Amino acid sequence: MTIGSVAELLAELRAAPGPDLAARTAAQARDAQLTKPPGSLGRLEEIALWYAGWQGDPRPSGLAPQIVIFAGNHGIAARGISAFPAEVTAQMVGNFRAGGAAVNQLARAFGASMTVQALDLDRPTADFTEGPAMDDTDLLAALNTGWSSVDPGAGLLVVGEMGIGNTTSAAAMACALFGGAPQDWIGRGTGVDAAGLQRKADVVATGLAHHAGALADPFEVLRRLGGREIAAMTGALARARVLRIPVLLDGFIASAAAAVLARAVPAALDHCLAGHCSAEAGHARLLEALDKAPILSLGLRLGEGSGAALAIGIVQGALACHSGMATFAEAGVAGG
Amino acid sequence: MTIGSVAELLAELRAAPGPDLAARTAAQARDAQLTKPPGSLGRLEEIALWYAGWQGDPRPSGLAPQIVIFAGNHGIAARGISAFPAEVTAQMVGNFRAGGAAVNQLARAFGASMTVQALDLDRPTADFTEGPAMDDTDLLAALNTGWSSVDPGAGLLVVGEMGIGNTTSAAAMACALFGGAPQDWIGRGTGVDAAGLQRKADVVATGLAHHAGALADPFEVLRRLGGREIAAMTGALARARVLRIPVLLDGFIASAAAAVLARAVPAALDHCLAGHCSAEAGHARLLEALDKAPILSLGLRLGEGSGAALAIGIVQGALACHSGMATFAEAGVAGG
Repeated sequence: MTIGSVAELLAELRAAPGPDLAARTAAQARDAQLTKPPGSLGRLEEIALWYAGWQGDPRPSGLAPQIVIFAGNHGIAARGISAFPAEVTAQMVGNFRAGGAAVNQLARAFGASMTVQALDLDRPTADFTEGPAMDDTDLLAALNTGWSSVDPGAGLLVVGEMGIGNTTSAAAMACALFGGAPQDWIGRGTGVDAAGLQRKADVVATGLAHHAGALADPFEVLRRLGGREIAAMTGALARARVLRIPVLLDGFIASAAAAVLARAVPAALDHCLAGHCSAEAGHARLLEALDKAPILSLGLRLGEGSGAALAIGIVQGALACHSGMATFAEAGVAGG
Repeated sequence: MTIGSVAELLAELRAAPGPDLAARTAAQARDAQLTKPPGSLGRLEEIALWYAGWQGDPRPSGLAPQIVIFAGNHGIAARGISAFPAEVTAQMVGNFRAGGAAVNQLARAFGASMTVQALDLDRPTADFTEGPAMDDTDLLAALNTGWSSVDPGAGLLVVGEMGIGNTTSAAAMACALFGGAPQDWIGRGTGVDAAGLQRKADVVATGLAHHAGALADPFEVLRRLGGREIAAMTGALARARVLRIPVLLDGFIASAAAAVLARAVPAALDHCLAGHCSAEAGHARLLEALDKAPILSLGLRLGEGSGAALAIGIVQGALACHSGMATFAEAGVAGG
């Protein structure tokens, strides 16, 4: 199944159902009877209720997480904005397929399925300081790659990315979507030095100036400043919302992909929790703009879905407690 | 195996070996070759190196976590300092044994073994506002319960507790060990109201006044203000240090048990990371005093080892990445 246009994607999003409130209410009633002081499991309780609502099950059992990694190349990578050369994108796709990357290990540790989608790596997007990164056809194809990658049977979705140069794209997008200065949104990415950081700020500023006046529409921000892997994440997150599949958001770039939806349709990210706050400088600010408090803050700055994949374990813990604990009555404990 | 006196425990602690620095250095060399930008796995890298050092293995495979829950009753519980009656301690021990508590679910979710030790529940400690909570015999017995509970084959240890009234004991101990006012260390525990909170502050102040002049020795703090389940945790943490088994510290009460060791022997907690910062008001301050930055901060305030048990998943993720990822050379990725 694919979508025929951005307008169609937006129509699907606007018509998407919210969480199952009856299931959520039933889960809340169950939580109140479990053998613990009220509220004493902290965010685990919130996570369990969120999950119960979106999955429509007051006592969920398994989690069946799906991780999808999207890879793309960026015209701006030629501008010296990354610590690594552009060919690393394709090399890392090979590493994902061979099972050698960090996210492969996390997927295995937490029982998630994992697939990789490489989007036209031999055809980088255009340099956004000179023109739109993608034309309409490219954008729609990338959105559809993401849209069709979501397994309707998944119980939880994580999308991740690989793309040399893409923290600069994400910074430009965040700046266009939420305002502020380029310096507010750029960071060291995979490890650029001070001169590289200055080049990133310059590229963002030049790109924003070039496209000034054409950035009111969030999907135009995505098309002009983003990249194929970012658009694919946007498409996948939208599809998960339509399918009512709960999502853990990963780092800065995945959050920029999500921000496009949030700016287009207010309730578009209601199915998402932030899995992890990255060490990439702009991510905390971006999560604040999206009003999402991260589950984890462990200083990762790797991308490829790794921070959110790590948070799968926390969701598993939350559901294990919610669905497995005895009630006061069952256990014969006073205070229920 | 047991210890014959507190002095013997201290001698064992002082003679305990540090981490295996050769294994840690080899782990660091491996980390530098993995297919990721240097440092990009954030705290996961620190956790993997910590674990490699304490387990003496540069590339650890399984984790084999052990969780031990200690339960005890407190004379001060009669003073209206808890939201739950004292009989809940024994009822919850039954719940642990039947597999119905939160920590049972987390143990199962993360593949940990779990045992429960109930310490003389029908014989509460003395009310510490009137005299020492324990005599020397009681203290030694409780330390030995903990000491002998540690499985020498465990790859990671979590100790947890259950004991109505024990946040008040832990607050009194923290105040005696680190100074400050009772208000700095007390919190709502399982959920007391404002009047209960005032009673907790009064009980702590009265206890500290009663034992003033006898609290310079950390083990006297434990004997006079602590409880059996707290002393058992102290004993178990000491044994893990001697056996070089890495530990994830749980919440406020477990951290108070650990603080006794830290005040007695400076390097006594080098094998410990803080698993979780509790919502109990004094815990953040206590972790700061112990110089331990928590892995998780998810607002749990349940005790029973639950916060640290949740962090087992993060350690598993860290080791999975460290031991399972491909090196740059293996994967044919540029930049190694």
